[in-house]
Amino acid sequence: MPEPSLALDDTTEGDDAPLLFERVAEAVRALIAARALVAGDRAPSLRASARHLGVSVATVVRAYEELEREGRLEARVRSGYFVAAPASVAPHGRPRVAARVPAARPVRTGEHIDEIIESARLPGVVPFAAANPGVELLPSKALGRALRAVAAGSPAALLDYAPMAGEPALQREIATRASRLGAPVDPGDVIVTAGATEALAIALRVVTRPGDTVVVESPVYFGLLRLLESLALRAIEIPTDPVHGLEPAALENVLARTAVAAVVSIATFNNPTGSLVPEAARERIVALCARHRTTLVEDDLYADLHADDRRPRSYRDVGNESWVVTCSSFSKTVAPGFRIGWVISSRDRVALLERKLVASGSNARLPQLAMARFLADGQYGRHVARLRRAYREQLRCLRASVHRHFPDGTRTSDPDGGFVLWVELAGGIDTQALYRRAIADGISLAPGALFTNGRRFRNCLRLSAGEPWTERHDNAIARLAALAAAS
Amino acid sequence: MPEPSLALDDTTEGDDAPLLFERVAEAVRALIAARALVAGDRAPSLRASARHLGVSVATVVRAYEELEREGRLEARVRSGYFVAAPASVAPHGRPRVAARVPAARPVRTGEHIDEIIESARLPGVVPFAAANPGVELLPSKALGRALRAVAAGSPAALLDYAPMAGEPALQREIATRASRLGAPVDPGDVIVTAGATEALAIALRVVTRPGDTVVVESPVYFGLLRLLESLALRAIEIPTDPVHGLEPAALENVLARTAVAAVVSIATFNNPTGSLVPEAARERIVALCARHRTTLVEDDLYADLHADDRRPRSYRDVGNESWVVTCSSFSKTVAPGFRIGWVISSRDRVALLERKLVASGSNARLPQLAMARFLADGQYGRHVARLRRAYREQLRCLRASVHRHFPDGTRTSDPDGGFVLWVELAGGIDTQALYRRAIADGISLAPGALFTNGRRFRNCLRLSAGEPWTERHDNAIARLAALAAAS
Repeated sequence: MPEPSLALDDTTEGDDAPLLFERVAEAVRALIAARALVAGDRAPSLRASARHLGVSVATVVRAYEELEREGRLEARVRSGYFVAAPASVAPHGRPRVAARVPAARPVRTGEHIDEIIESARLPGVVPFAAANPGVELLPSKALGRALRAVAAGSPAALLDYAPMAGEPALQREIATRASRLGAPVDPGDVIVTAGATEALAIALRVVTRPGDTVVVESPVYFGLLRLLESLALRAIEIPTDPVHGLEPAALENVLARTAVAAVVSIATFNNPTGSLVPEAARERIVALCARHRTTLVEDDLYADLHADDRRPRSYRDVGNESWVVTCSSFSKTVAPGFRIGWVISSRDRVALLERKLVASGSNARLPQLAMARFLADGQYGRHVARLRRAYREQLRCLRASVHRHFPDGTRTSDPDGGFVLWVELAGGIDTQALYRRAIADGISLAPGALFTNGRRFRNCLRLSAGEPWTERHDNAIARLAALAAAS
Repeated sequence: MPEPSLALDDTTEGDDAPLLFERVAEAVRALIAARALVAGDRAPSLRASARHLGVSVATVVRAYEELEREGRLEARVRSGYFVAAPASVAPHGRPRVAARVPAARPVRTGEHIDEIIESARLPGVVPFAAANPGVELLPSKALGRALRAVAAGSPAALLDYAPMAGEPALQREIATRASRLGAPVDPGDVIVTAGATEALAIALRVVTRPGDTVVVESPVYFGLLRLLESLALRAIEIPTDPVHGLEPAALENVLARTAVAAVVSIATFNNPTGSLVPEAARERIVALCARHRTTLVEDDLYADLHADDRRPRSYRDVGNESWVVTCSSFSKTVAPGFRIGWVISSRDRVALLERKLVASGSNARLPQLAMARFLADGQYGRHVARLRRAYREQLRCLRASVHRHFPDGTRTSDPDGGFVLWVELAGGIDTQALYRRAIADGISLAPGALFTNGRRFRNCLRLSAGEPWTERHDNAIARLAALAAAS
């Protein structure tokens, strides 16, 4: 059977004309509208279409990705693009942003966070709930080799306490990477921590006192809310854009009228929305914090997971670094179970180290030495390039699957990196109730209510695309959609 | 040359007569007093003396150990007993105890703790400052094997997050050991932490609020003081006996007149004194805490390092365990660098876990799995039996060396386990100044001022016998004594 023939609309040329890829997309839309292509058909092949239309393959790919975002096409792993079922042929907007910034208030989280996150680890459960990387994507062989090499060295490397601030070899590797896009980092200013969790905990202990107010993004990572609660801090949640994240104007309004001890922001691939604060906005945010003498605690955990080639610069790269405390880890990129994170601040180094030693002492030594060796061998760059491609593809498949199976009116984020998807269902669907039904059916998810200290996001959920995508995952999304429809 | 002839004094027989070993010791004292034995002479051999006197070798050993305590004999590694130099032939009493209990006050520690403790790690420095086990005493081969076996298993064991409260296999091993001498411990009540440091930190976060008062022993482990300071707690330091530790009557007086949120006690081989609270006193202490509804946080870190055959029962073994939170670790027994500790409390389990997750997330996985395997293989018991003998010998050598080189009036503790020695020098010697001179000479020590929130112990120091004893250590003690004499 000959493929339906694509044709570009020549009447749209001129200065205001759409970009080439948009014209290719429009040509496909026309074939679908004319029912020359129907649900389940294979879309015209990328190469043939490019040749036929006289455009590059990349232009056709970009058009098809756009059509996929719209729910008109769907990508199948290793099979190419197909026309999607009519139910999902509908505009899927981005999740919406509230206009109002609520007042500061004490944080109260529920007791069910752990249960939900641990549910992703139950045998047989599809683990959409936890923002954990799929173990099969991680460099187990290279890390195993590094570990064996270190363990076979001196008994001290295996057994002894590590230096208090961290293994010097690891501090150097982290400092070198952190120096690439901004001000140079002194390795001595890197304090190795038990994941970004401990980095955030000691940073907030240093820059706040109980009762202080902290600005966070909304929706916000539930672990941060729980930390604020444990430190008896008050939170102001600034609604953030699902594309551009924290907006400087909104922050400026808050800082102008409230005494704020710290601002905590995930500028790069926010958890849960995946938003990315543009560089100009980052500069303004750092300048605002410096002007108000408020510390900006940045959680830079996902920054190496950029879908395109350029790593976004972090807050500390773009402004007055003395007001920035940078927290990060290898938990989303190399080895969650190694529990290796870090915090960087030349201004607060002494106080941060003191807090770290009181809280947990030095970090385990062997994982630090093995990680340092893995990094020094130059394996991180190659590994993370592969990982970025995998996460990008998995996120794309997850998003397409949601568009395919959920009804019109379902809104999704469209992150340029990381591996979590933020989904807004039609109003009236309670995702906590959905969680309970889903987990009974072997599917875990993170309900939106976890991501706020207020009452928003009850019809939202976060889905993780940490695992390689399979039919099993697609089936789980289909079942989830059916459960949501029945609620 | 024939050995001088020992003879027991027969006139001391009867109901009030001294024990046999004391009569043997008295016979040796008589030879030294008569100058039949002089400094540097080899003491009569253990076997020959036993045969000659018609007593067991063990009785002679006990007599010689007593004479060594008195500074009359000295033991040399692998050479036997020798008559000590006259300077050290003098009664060495125990460090003294203050009568007065100071009022509760906010804790302020200095900034030089880390510098002093890290000084023990400087290359070439004799590490008396840090209470760390000598790496050569630890089971590096068995742990290396366990680690390789685990790392060669599933990639998940190497890479993935551990379950939040700890690896179930490790929880079981810890629970089994903790159940041996008292109430059974449910493995689910064991929360694995980053060493006893994190165990204590989360325990105090759970049972106190800023401004609360906590009772501690005096002298007290400086890490605990620093923790109290970071939590904005007030401390009452109860002077403790260098032999019997915390005394129930003193605690009762304090609890009767002050609202106390928690009592923190190292009942078994206290750090720094090495004291051991008798079991009857433990029972009274737990009962007192229960009566006053005050949580007793026990640091049980050194309990497996008993010099004799019987492991002392912990507070949770002897009383109402619902008022006891037990903290411990493998850092002094198996692998400091693994950072594996635990906290046990069925009453506070949920709150403790919550604090742990907020502070640092779950513990690193691979060290937990390797430790669980090491324990399950039954290797811990054999290893720790060897380790106890080594620490006992090292502590004996350290103490004898101090008696040999330091002048009359120097008082030392005489611990029945653990591996730290508490030394009280003649008044007027400032051990902080001594620390500075000693570290310039390549010798580290922990000055007494670190071990109090008040102004006591300025003429005291803590010495660690973690390393196998050598001439180098003895020379270092001799130099330290010379530095002290010159001050």
